[in-house]
Amino acid sequence: MDVVELLGEIAEIGRDPVRGGYSRHVYEPAELELREWFRRKSAGLGLEVETDRNGNIWAHWGPVGTGTIAIGSHLDSVPGGGAYDGPLGVASSLAAVSALMDEGFVPAQPVTVAAFGEEEGSRFGIACLGSKLMAGAIPGATVAALTDDTGVTYAEACRADGIDPAGLGRDDERLASLGAFVELHVEQGVGLADLDSPVAVASSILAHGRWKLVFSGEGNHAGATRMRDRRDPVAAMAAAVLAAQRIASAHDGPDSARATIGRLTPIPGGTNVIASRVDAWLDVRGDTDPQTRALLEEILEASHAAAKEHGCGLEVTEESYVSTVHFDANLRERLVEALDGVPVLATGAGHDAGILAAEIPTAMLFTRNPTGVSHSPHETASDEDCRAGARALTEVVRILASEPR
Amino acid sequence: MDVVELLGEIAEIGRDPVRGGYSRHVYEPAELELREWFRRKSAGLGLEVETDRNGNIWAHWGPVGTGTIAIGSHLDSVPGGGAYDGPLGVASSLAAVSALMDEGFVPAQPVTVAAFGEEEGSRFGIACLGSKLMAGAIPGATVAALTDDTGVTYAEACRADGIDPAGLGRDDERLASLGAFVELHVEQGVGLADLDSPVAVASSILAHGRWKLVFSGEGNHAGATRMRDRRDPVAAMAAAVLAAQRIASAHDGPDSARATIGRLTPIPGGTNVIASRVDAWLDVRGDTDPQTRALLEEILEASHAAAKEHGCGLEVTEESYVSTVHFDANLRERLVEALDGVPVLATGAGHDAGILAAEIPTAMLFTRNPTGVSHSPHETASDEDCRAGARALTEVVRILASEPR
Repeated sequence: MDVVELLGEIAEIGRDPVRGGYSRHVYEPAELELREWFRRKSAGLGLEVETDRNGNIWAHWGPVGTGTIAIGSHLDSVPGGGAYDGPLGVASSLAAVSALMDEGFVPAQPVTVAAFGEEEGSRFGIACLGSKLMAGAIPGATVAALTDDTGVTYAEACRADGIDPAGLGRDDERLASLGAFVELHVEQGVGLADLDSPVAVASSILAHGRWKLVFSGEGNHAGATRMRDRRDPVAAMAAAVLAAQRIASAHDGPDSARATIGRLTPIPGGTNVIASRVDAWLDVRGDTDPQTRALLEEILEASHAAAKEHGCGLEVTEESYVSTVHFDANLRERLVEALDGVPVLATGAGHDAGILAAEIPTAMLFTRNPTGVSHSPHETASDEDCRAGARALTEVVRILASEPR
Repeated sequence: MDVVELLGEIAEIGRDPVRGGYSRHVYEPAELELREWFRRKSAGLGLEVETDRNGNIWAHWGPVGTGTIAIGSHLDSVPGGGAYDGPLGVASSLAAVSALMDEGFVPAQPVTVAAFGEEEGSRFGIACLGSKLMAGAIPGATVAALTDDTGVTYAEACRADGIDPAGLGRDDERLASLGAFVELHVEQGVGLADLDSPVAVASSILAHGRWKLVFSGEGNHAGATRMRDRRDPVAAMAAAVLAAQRIASAHDGPDSARATIGRLTPIPGGTNVIASRVDAWLDVRGDTDPQTRALLEEILEASHAAAKEHGCGLEVTEESYVSTVHFDANLRERLVEALDGVPVLATGAGHDAGILAAEIPTAMLFTRNPTGVSHSPHETASDEDCRAGARALTEVVRILASEPR
């Protein structure tokens, strides 16, 4: 199996005619189609396919046992995302297993390919749900009650892939079976492009969190309400957006501080209506927990001041927070050695590997992204680099599955 | 028929469980139910009901002929609108006709009650579509091709009420049949509350228009993209929102200048995604055309500067523009006289009466709104004032339909 051909097979699934790129949200038809595709390809390789009780799919090479080497990534996308974020890791994993099988390689450790559910948080608002559920980082009941934009709960949605919501939650048995997890992912910055290398190994993931900001004002008629009589939450939100950008830019020394508002909804949202409320989501990241918390506090202080200035209220809810992740140092060294000293890079993007790093030795490989653009239809990676990434993952599995633990 | 009871009959139709208030958009189920209600009530009074080829409904008292006195308003709402904006005028008109019939009044001129379609522009983006079509202020083919948020065209939607989109366009015959149009509407400011009067007659409507602003930047990953590498259209939009508010407030001398952004959509709209584009709608109003145009130019200049500052593009499209409307002076004087010298007020809100004023003698009555809040679930009018408004309209019809032209 060739990684580029594998991606070609799914190139028409879940295209977004409005945003461009792909909208493949967990348990919606396009993502379900990708799940079936992954099961079919895995079965074709002779792997034993299993869907766990948290909606993650596993394709086992050899009997399941302790010390299993897991590789993989996710199939879902952000709204209007690119072709590589997620599927590249799954396709590269299938290609790596296939290449080793073709050689006649016999793994000394069990190997499994994983596809995690709702990595992006695009449908239910919380990223890495599949790995967080498995690691017990979020209670199953909490996830079951999450709703998407149309009011469908996770509990209702997951039944589409045969998941019983009563079974959601930490999976001790599976965690105990895993010896290591290596996630290959397209890079989401220009680190490799700057270093002129097709592949890198990850060092760490920035601390990051999401906060929901609800600005409340007074809904009214856009024509009949004098400017001085307004309490406009859109104006309050706008001042907060600019404050977040200004503050994060001031903190942005060694490529660390990030603050983004990319999702916001004025309510009711009519052209001739002063909104009564704006819901906005703030994404903040930083090198360390104290730096990230300090950045957040400064942004929230400015946001509260902005709300007050425009006669509005502001309520803030933390939707998620993940501390800085340092990947397993030993595993990282073994990967760098196996790959002839490839570069080591930090990333600002969250991943299932970041969640699992708290439970098992975990590592990541990045495939070069020439423009650094990701979470966009314009995300790219060359065919040559995708194949280089799959070959690197093949070497990593060969090393890790060769050695008795 | 009592106006308060009439409004009570439709109080459960089209409630919006998310925004509160009502979402009654043209040709959607709730608005279709209101249309049926209006037809049924009109038929119950013995009026002859007719739906014109532009989707406006007419209920005729007496034979259709020249010099017809038309009264009425609209049934549709903004998203999450109040109970009065629109339906109060239709219900007051039915109450007025009913009261005159009960008295045994015989009109010397034909009288008709009108319900205009898509006054708010909430579904197809352009306000006063029914009256604009009838007056030829917008081509039928243009309206037929308009699409709602789900991609349904006006041509497809209007068939839900039996309208043939081929017939959309200026209706000379109907315009020639009308001697006057009087629209009663809930006030959308605090003018009457300040003046301690339940009813007023309109002097003019501010000039107003809608412009679509498309800010385009570079979609990218919220975690992996350094602040200094961003071209974030949300930031550009935010700066434009604040500029619009600042500039309109500076112009807002004698209650005239208004600028509002109440509707905006970041694309793709993910929490962990720097948006690639933001669509925002700017609503601008002013006393006179030159004042309004000057205000707009200043806001757009600031918006272009904001876009440039954030490395973004900006495209602006005028979606609609209506010059200042001065209602017919003679008709206004007759109304004031008939109503014992009630106050005369300007309004910042657009109305079908403002469109028809270019074609026929047109006037408006306002019913007091104690808080001034409109286009909101919190819009109110007391039962007593609603009845005072209906009685005023009754007197107006009595005067206008008594005199031979």
